[in-house]
Amino acid sequence: MSGSEPPVPETRVLAVASHVVSGYVGNKIAVFVLQALGCDAAALNTVQFSNHTGYKQWKGTRVSAQEITDLFEGLKQSYLDDFEMMLSGYIPGAEAVGAVGNIAKELKEKSKGTPGKFFWVLDPVMGDNGRLYVAEEVVPAYQSLIPYADLILPNQFEAEVLSDVKIVDMDTLTQAIQVLHEKYRVPHIVITSVNLLAPDHPPSHLSVVGSSMTSGGRARLFKIVFPAIDCYFSGTGDMFAALMVVRMRQAVAEVPGLGQRPSWLSDDDTPTLELPLARAAERVLASMNEVLSRTKEGMPKDLKPKTADQNSHLAATKAAELRLVRHLDCLRSPKVEFKARVV
Amino acid sequence: MSGSEPPVPETRVLAVASHVVSGYVGNKIAVFVLQALGCDAAALNTVQFSNHTGYKQWKGTRVSAQEITDLFEGLKQSYLDDFEMMLSGYIPGAEAVGAVGNIAKELKEKSKGTPGKFFWVLDPVMGDNGRLYVAEEVVPAYQSLIPYADLILPNQFEAEVLSDVKIVDMDTLTQAIQVLHEKYRVPHIVITSVNLLAPDHPPSHLSVVGSSMTSGGRARLFKIVFPAIDCYFSGTGDMFAALMVVRMRQAVAEVPGLGQRPSWLSDDDTPTLELPLARAAERVLASMNEVLSRTKEGMPKDLKPKTADQNSHLAATKAAELRLVRHLDCLRSPKVEFKARVV
Repeated sequence: MSGSEPPVPETRVLAVASHVVSGYVGNKIAVFVLQALGCDAAALNTVQFSNHTGYKQWKGTRVSAQEITDLFEGLKQSYLDDFEMMLSGYIPGAEAVGAVGNIAKELKEKSKGTPGKFFWVLDPVMGDNGRLYVAEEVVPAYQSLIPYADLILPNQFEAEVLSDVKIVDMDTLTQAIQVLHEKYRVPHIVITSVNLLAPDHPPSHLSVVGSSMTSGGRARLFKIVFPAIDCYFSGTGDMFAALMVVRMRQAVAEVPGLGQRPSWLSDDDTPTLELPLARAAERVLASMNEVLSRTKEGMPKDLKPKTADQNSHLAATKAAELRLVRHLDCLRSPKVEFKARVV
Repeated sequence: MSGSEPPVPETRVLAVASHVVSGYVGNKIAVFVLQALGCDAAALNTVQFSNHTGYKQWKGTRVSAQEITDLFEGLKQSYLDDFEMMLSGYIPGAEAVGAVGNIAKELKEKSKGTPGKFFWVLDPVMGDNGRLYVAEEVVPAYQSLIPYADLILPNQFEAEVLSDVKIVDMDTLTQAIQVLHEKYRVPHIVITSVNLLAPDHPPSHLSVVGSSMTSGGRARLFKIVFPAIDCYFSGTGDMFAALMVVRMRQAVAEVPGLGQRPSWLSDDDTPTLELPLARAAERVLASMNEVLSRTKEGMPKDLKPKTADQNSHLAATKAAELRLVRHLDCLRSPKVEFKARVV
């Protein structure tokens, strides 16, 4: 690290997500990523669990909506609410989603005289692979908040839920993103882990598809294809989101004046592949690929993750915990191999 | 960081301390230090407060003794209690101290057939500068646990409370450490922030005094003198403790076979200045001095920390939050300038 400067200017980020004692999901991974890349991360933990739920058993408690509100009141009364960015991840229940939304709205309102001063990255954690894993009332709670977000990071299923468009191919994916821009006026969108058959999608590859809208609300779409790693990891969405916070901030800082524009939205004549969102996503995926590869390499070869035996499941789940702390170079200086393409 | 290896082998550490949303004390600083130096840190948070108590106002909640016990049960049921080290810091109340003590005792018991397999670093957080800041019943709770600890890190006041020796000069300090070794059979002791007049103590300097006992329970004392930085920082004890975990592990790993001996205790004929504890403390203080210096340099010059005005107090307290995240090199590769001397 000696001699290598952090990639972003000093940035105060409020990270709201779950905390696990052991392992790497939610704030446990997001806060480390933010800090390792030089951000002053405030961590508001929405739960404290012994371990992530992929183990299928855990202990611990949720933080109530009132406690979330109180913690933010505590920050405000000591002038510690001077956040430049906010990242919200898993929040337990609709009431708590509302409480976190109120924090974001308040921070946004406070900075409204200074465009670009506050930027909210919202990961609308609701479900995956065709199934909700939160209570149904969480969906409208998120829907009412998305118009306040600057960047949302739904996975393919969450994008469907929010847009009411069933995604089956690139056309419907494009349509879903256009609907999200129009319906919620959300400026930046990245859909993570897109899994579609397409001519430019080799087998065993995934993609992310992103867009920063024009002043008229039109999508500007790009896509990054990358090799899937055959393993079930937890926490990848949280790592992706934290890296996006840093790399978006960095990419915007590289464009003079952009950081002072509302929602850091680029000129209409900016080529899609020069959008800061596209450049950020490239760097994020480079880090993701390196961390996941190192994690896979570090796993014992004799694990059988898909047996019905509970002890094998626990051992395999532990072995798949993301390995960041000994691979800081993957976060700091990843090699960009997967490039964005215009959709 | 590229190319620079972590200083310790992969080490799973259970860190038990407070969590603050904003700022750097307790687990908020300890966990980052452990992770930045390559440890797999599990973080069991004993409170979640908006900010540290040095602001004189905060919001948030304490975790009950029962919740602490439950979280550990959660780890055990998924075989996530395979810790090689444990670091315990601030724990709210005697009952919770007992709960944390039970965790340490259980981990110790589990590894008793394999000497050196588990090492507990206990920071008996009770008070400072002549005054307890915990309830009185916390004192006997700690006293009953110290015989299970491998290394304790009391400050000067806590060493007095635990040893019943009033420390007024190097003689009484030496006596207090000898009492701690004998009364509690605790193998390693470092007394942090010793402030005594002594011929080898220039004005505006502090020292730490440490000892690893012989097989017969005799103290082997060393002292490291370093310049005090004129500022009131919070979280320094927690940063010190986390750095000690890493540097002790590293120094022990540098001595063949030592990691397989009970409590990592060196041979009786090991020269005092070659004790791993002394070498670890040198590296720890090097990092501390660099982080505190960078923090001081980064503070606005016009702050008046000692006015009675509450807003000035809040601003000064925020400015004194430790600045680690942009100075990882201070943690990873500090320059050792302050050397241990035999007392």
